Amino acid sequence: MLCERLTIIGIGLIGGSLARAVRRGRLAGSITACSPDPEELARARALGIVDNTATDPAAAVAGAQLVVVAVPVRAMDAVFAAIAPALAPDAVVTDAGSTKLSVIEAARAQLGPHFSRFVGAHPIAGTEASGVDAGFDSLFDDRVAVLTPLAETDAGAIALVEHLWRGVGARPERLAPALHDEILAATSHLPHLLAFTLVDELARHRDARALFRYAAGGFRDFTRIASSNPLMWADIAIANRDALLREVHGYIAALSAVAADLDRGDHAALVAAFSRARDARNTCLPALAGRPEGAA
Amino acid sequence: MLCERLTIIGIGLIGGSLARAVRRGRLAGSITACSPDPEELARARALGIVDNTATDPAAAVAGAQLVVVAVPVRAMDAVFAAIAPALAPDAVVTDAGSTKLSVIEAARAQLGPHFSRFVGAHPIAGTEASGVDAGFDSLFDDRVAVLTPLAETDAGAIALVEHLWRGVGARPERLAPALHDEILAATSHLPHLLAFTLVDELARHRDARALFRYAAGGFRDFTRIASSNPLMWADIAIANRDALLREVHGYIAALSAVAADLDRGDHAALVAAFSRARDARNTCLPALAGRPEGAA
Repeated sequence: MLCERLTIIGIGLIGGSLARAVRRGRLAGSITACSPDPEELARARALGIVDNTATDPAAAVAGAQLVVVAVPVRAMDAVFAAIAPALAPDAVVTDAGSTKLSVIEAARAQLGPHFSRFVGAHPIAGTEASGVDAGFDSLFDDRVAVLTPLAETDAGAIALVEHLWRGVGARPERLAPALHDEILAATSHLPHLLAFTLVDELARHRDARALFRYAAGGFRDFTRIASSNPLMWADIAIANRDALLREVHGYIAALSAVAADLDRGDHAALVAAFSRARDARNTCLPALAGRPEGAA
Repeated sequence: MLCERLTIIGIGLIGGSLARAVRRGRLAGSITACSPDPEELARARALGIVDNTATDPAAAVAGAQLVVVAVPVRAMDAVFAAIAPALAPDAVVTDAGSTKLSVIEAARAQLGPHFSRFVGAHPIAGTEASGVDAGFDSLFDDRVAVLTPLAETDAGAIALVEHLWRGVGARPERLAPALHDEILAATSHLPHLLAFTLVDELARHRDARALFRYAAGGFRDFTRIASSNPLMWADIAIANRDALLREVHGYIAALSAVAADLDRGDHAALVAAFSRARDARNTCLPALAGRPEGAA
């Protein structure tokens, strides 16, 4: 068993899935969920995935050995500030946010003496759905959970958080926080921005109804991530602004180059670019083949 | 029954699926497949989905009442030129190309007196896979098949082609060719260009291996169409160049505006744009919910 008492702050898709997976693995004596929304907490209780609930973060963490903060990244700072005075002396705090530098900064600013037992983490898993009802206990199975401990992070705290993610089926791996944020900017934050922008752009079209009417499966998959939580993704974009802006500007330059090839009617250049893309995707993504569900 | 003898020129994903679906519906007395590749023809025969094969288009269409040309759009012109002298007087010719103005222009230039019995068509269905082995008989089930007849097109020819697509499970609908090309530029050709460009861009990254290693399901779905046939999509892009360039430039402008919002840290503007996108997608794409396979 991981710990006697686990507290999960934020009981949406990620927090709700984590509660289910912790139950499945019998990793905690009891699970306390915290949310500002009493209805979400009532749903979590009705689903039988948590034992106790609280709307106040300080009350929720009292007596917990491990606290997982699974709220949108922009809300992390306020949560850390609220829980810091109420944490048990040896409590370990971790998160599940999609950006790491900004979350670590918030933890450093707010957690005080507990910061050495804070371990930044990001399970690379998710779907475009939101809310506790959208969760499921296998969400993290076989997914990478990135941990971003610092040189000063307590070794026992890191071990506990690795134990948590391994216990819910994920594969913990360590990355430097800045490298994590650069990688995720390219592979996750940029694609979300591109998909949101495409659908928003098409929706403004004068033929918008016809456009969507003749859209098919390729469009559906390409834009699936545009059904993700807008607030959560605006938070992520701004929390990882510098790395994401670099990716966006690089992408605009690449797309402009392709547009120039197209404008010239340069068939060979397009075939070469499309072939490089197909080959890279087919050789670099084998591990994802056949996975039924998506991830943010 | 649709006709005694059906000829399908090009026996890849679309041609091969059409042969299977025609068999399933017992729509033709016999099916002749034509391809320049003898191995592809041997596979089609081994799969039992065609009765006769030919590498020469003129020989393939002899005696056929209906000819479906399912080759990349850039190859249409040469195929029309090759078959025109060999077509039976009343033969109906149709195609399955993803652009319509360019294909109609090629048909008008090459088919001579047969042009009045040419009916442009585009089944909005497909997957990212290529080749006869990738086909399946339900590919067109419940999909829209766009027909783009002209004022001068023979009514009997239109009826026969509608019969074909209805017989293989699709829903035939008519659109003006220019409108078809504008709509598909926005919903299909642009997303393909965006996906190819993203994967090509990421593959050039200095951290390319790490990038793909930490990519997850959202990235997989977003880039699925970047595994499509590069030659076919370069053809489509150039055949629909004007409409596609308008869409690409509109998209670059929209993305630049989002980048400016992000640069300013304008959280509210991002939430508003992402919310519009999510709402448009969730309300406009209900018919696609739960469809297991994609479409070009």
